[in-house]
Amino acid sequence: MCSAIRVLGVDPGLTRCGVGVVEGVVGRPPSLVAVGVVRTPADLDLAKRLLQIEQGIEEWVTTHRPDAVAVERVFAQHNLSSVTGTAQAAGVAMLVAARHGIPVVLHTPSEVKAAITGSGRADKTQVGVMVARVLRLTEAPKPADAADAVALAITHLWRGSATNRYAALVAEHSARTTATHRSRTPNRSRS
Amino acid sequence: MCSAIRVLGVDPGLTRCGVGVVEGVVGRPPSLVAVGVVRTPADLDLAKRLLQIEQGIEEWVTTHRPDAVAVERVFAQHNLSSVTGTAQAAGVAMLVAARHGIPVVLHTPSEVKAAITGSGRADKTQVGVMVARVLRLTEAPKPADAADAVALAITHLWRGSATNRYAALVAEHSARTTATHRSRTPNRSRS
Repeated sequence: MCSAIRVLGVDPGLTRCGVGVVEGVVGRPPSLVAVGVVRTPADLDLAKRLLQIEQGIEEWVTTHRPDAVAVERVFAQHNLSSVTGTAQAAGVAMLVAARHGIPVVLHTPSEVKAAITGSGRADKTQVGVMVARVLRLTEAPKPADAADAVALAITHLWRGSATNRYAALVAEHSARTTATHRSRTPNRSRS
Repeated sequence: MCSAIRVLGVDPGLTRCGVGVVEGVVGRPPSLVAVGVVRTPADLDLAKRLLQIEQGIEEWVTTHRPDAVAVERVFAQHNLSSVTGTAQAAGVAMLVAARHGIPVVLHTPSEVKAAITGSGRADKTQVGVMVARVLRLTEAPKPADAADAVALAITHLWRGSATNRYAALVAEHSARTTATHRSRTPNRSRS
């Protein structure tokens, strides 16, 4: 019931891949376990950059053993010039998680902003301020990619819990209905 | 001098990833070693699909030990809805190659069409027909993704050879110039 859930958030990027691990226990505010950035040099061959990102994420996964990995959903509609690289960095993070059997969830930037600040149109500063407040930090993790990764992890913790609570309620309700139904129609069977 | 060069071409995609291995020896037409498709089910989790693509490409690389991997360059300008998945499949192929220390080259669709058919605006049928002709096959490899992968491998073989021949000429010329220079100015030294 009270076991902690760890989420690794990944804000994908070739130059800077934000990573943040947040732990949540039901009924308590989430806490920051670790935050950082996986960087690759812009002058390196693309294939080797992807390999370095893989090694970086692999290290975060084996060190922190998250229960879920939350990755920002990449849209082709924005930043046409960099979307391919961003999508590939996200794909590598997903691949590493899948290899470890860790479930992957994708959240859109506006889902994250809405979950953290209450508005899907919040800017990076507002997200950073709220991340710091939620985690009781004196200031937002830096750079912004790191703060975004933490925001993704918190979002998943909250949305995940909400979903779980909803699923639990549905299961409870359905069990109750079935029980009622059974008590009213005992020994009734139809093919 | 006459050692064969093997190229694995990859036409990236989540549902069908075309793969083709072509071998080239200077002065002889290239020959087809193997061609196929790595498929992943559309209803599978995206992270698991990427893992299956990784395993598929890994198998092709370890079985055929290519000297280079040629991957189609993905542009965000086309097919906005599928570009993210295509880019991720391409990224996974590049990652596998980099892990094996195999050089990765990217070719644009129009580079491939131009190299194979002489026109950067050729359609899939024309590319298939020319691939079959170049490799002395009775018909084009199927599906089109497989033929495209083979076309990528041939393109790289041809463009690579051209580059190598040019590099060899430059090296030869520069060696000759240095030798001439030396023979004209014997025992000359300056700090």
